[in-house]
Amino acid sequence: MNNGILGTKVITQIGLLVHDIEKVSQAYAEFFGMEKPAWFWTDTVDKAQTEFRGASSEARAKLAFFDMGSLQLELIEPDRHASTWREHLDAHGEGVHHIAFVVEGMKEKISLMEGKGLKLVQKGEYTGGRYAYLDTFEPLKVMLELLENDK
Amino acid sequence: MNNGILGTKVITQIGLLVHDIEKVSQAYAEFFGMEKPAWFWTDTVDKAQTEFRGASSEARAKLAFFDMGSLQLELIEPDRHASTWREHLDAHGEGVHHIAFVVEGMKEKISLMEGKGLKLVQKGEYTGGRYAYLDTFEPLKVMLELLENDK
Repeated sequence: MNNGILGTKVITQIGLLVHDIEKVSQAYAEFFGMEKPAWFWTDTVDKAQTEFRGASSEARAKLAFFDMGSLQLELIEPDRHASTWREHLDAHGEGVHHIAFVVEGMKEKISLMEGKGLKLVQKGEYTGGRYAYLDTFEPLKVMLELLENDK
Repeated sequence: MNNGILGTKVITQIGLLVHDIEKVSQAYAEFFGMEKPAWFWTDTVDKAQTEFRGASSEARAKLAFFDMGSLQLELIEPDRHASTWREHLDAHGEGVHHIAFVVEGMKEKISLMEGKGLKLVQKGEYTGGRYAYLDTFEPLKVMLELLENDK
């Protein structure tokens, strides 16, 4: 055995698409007895450098995070611009969008995955790191997100 | 704040429905550098006492588990009998079916949830414990599974 393509198998996040982040955040907070976190917008394209299917996109999303044990549950309410979030929400409705893994060497990981025919769907920057979604649905039955945080 | 309805917010499992558990197990094993676990059938109805929407069901599924950090990823290939697994797979295709939580006092937890209008969808026994799926899709955008293990 080896460490696999990602060098990790620790799921750090489950991402869910929702239509109304306020309402779903409230439901989670009540059901699990947690404080309702404040949601925030992802950065604008000048800062996030968002690319969806190879093209720059102004897409943004409202995000809210809940600590659920050793991983985070992420709620995502996308805007109307083109993104994997909007595409998935329109095609499949609300529900799970991805599971995420923290990696080192984002570029190399993406190259390794592309070498296996797994397509980069979307990528972008956030304060302190960057993310990439890859279409792993055919082999793994769920989309993966890679997260790389600056040291 | 309180501890919420379940008394826990630790996600212990993510369950995915698949058409071919052998194939998807192999893909996970290769991608993440893990050993391919042996899948196994859930118990027959005499032992599992499976109930789906209030009626006894002979439904069974092949299950395989992968340790992915502090939680397990569960692959589920259902048979043709009536179950939440078969229903969800037929309606939505392959992908995430539920997230699971280990609880104490299964009956009480189910009652509390039913009191909030959340319906019990399926329940059953396994060696060393029992499970219940509840339809939490409307508020939480994903189905929950409760697991209770004998002490």
